[in-house]
Amino acid sequence: MNYYSAPIARLIDEFTKLPGIGRKTAQRLAFHVIGMPHEEVSVLAETIIEAKKSVKYCSICTNLTDRETCNICNDKKRDMTVICVVEDPRDVVAMEKTKEFHGYYHVLHGVISPLEGIGPEEIRIKELLTRLAENEVKEVILATNPNIEGEATAMYIAKLLKPLGIKVSRIAYGIPVGGDLEYADEITLSKAMEGRREL
Amino acid sequence: MNYYSAPIARLIDEFTKLPGIGRKTAQRLAFHVIGMPHEEVSVLAETIIEAKKSVKYCSICTNLTDRETCNICNDKKRDMTVICVVEDPRDVVAMEKTKEFHGYYHVLHGVISPLEGIGPEEIRIKELLTRLAENEVKEVILATNPNIEGEATAMYIAKLLKPLGIKVSRIAYGIPVGGDLEYADEITLSKAMEGRREL
Repeated sequence: MNYYSAPIARLIDEFTKLPGIGRKTAQRLAFHVIGMPHEEVSVLAETIIEAKKSVKYCSICTNLTDRETCNICNDKKRDMTVICVVEDPRDVVAMEKTKEFHGYYHVLHGVISPLEGIGPEEIRIKELLTRLAENEVKEVILATNPNIEGEATAMYIAKLLKPLGIKVSRIAYGIPVGGDLEYADEITLSKAMEGRREL
Repeated sequence: MNYYSAPIARLIDEFTKLPGIGRKTAQRLAFHVIGMPHEEVSVLAETIIEAKKSVKYCSICTNLTDRETCNICNDKKRDMTVICVVEDPRDVVAMEKTKEFHGYYHVLHGVISPLEGIGPEEIRIKELLTRLAENEVKEVILATNPNIEGEATAMYIAKLLKPLGIKVSRIAYGIPVGGDLEYADEITLSKAMEGRREL
């Protein structure tokens, strides 16, 4: 038995394809959309189309942008001697929110993952090497995620860059601020001990 | 500082307007949409527009449908002597999933709520009375939500229908199946006691 009329069922199916949206949420969203004024629904649909159409990769760092180069690469006041390498455009946003990093980024769009058939050629490592060859970069900070694939990708890139005489660093593992030693897993805790600093 | 390029920022804003979608989820959805193939993005946007355009209210029960009358009202095998009154089209879906109710529905599209300025004229009570005048209905089951407004709306409708000689019933309050007496609030528990049945 079909509980929904066909256009509602199709809309629920579409919403279910989005990440983190289960059937219940999809149903809620679909009924909400149907209750929205016509103009607002048009704006929503057009914004989706427009974002997809106009957003492309920055020709320098491969971050997302609607122009040839992204806002960050266009900002000439930043420190051009440091490049922070991240997996994903969302990581750039997370990093920018700290307001602590003033260099430039390089977005890999993925990590090396033999299990998923993603080799070094599938992510933007070549573009990073080209950038390093053409610019005076003193340090590359590898800020891939602290998991197996992120770690392997960082190690891979570090090996490539070492011979170029560029300083390569990796973000610190440790206990999150506000976290609790008692609940930290052993690996994180031992990494936090290993990375201890003199006060 | 703007962390996102403008079309992404606009898309995140649009998603944030949807119910249950906070900024983090909206950001995740927006980046996902940008990573989707062009055709899929078009399908998503068109499905949204199409659902809004084609879905209207059933001329009998005011449930959502893309035709003149809904699937349920079109199903002539159901019991026309019973009408179940619900607040929202979603409640029809919830009720249908139980597969226990075989009568017809009437969707109020809201509840009486003096605080929000919603009186009996703002919800579909008049349409219910018209239906009852034109059909041989023996029982009206009031299945509005078990909260203050749902209860008040049920009482209001019950008062209107009593003089017509129609049996009016209200869904049962009680402990949910799988629930735990220990964690039930006192009102629910006393309602469950009150509604006890001989075995």
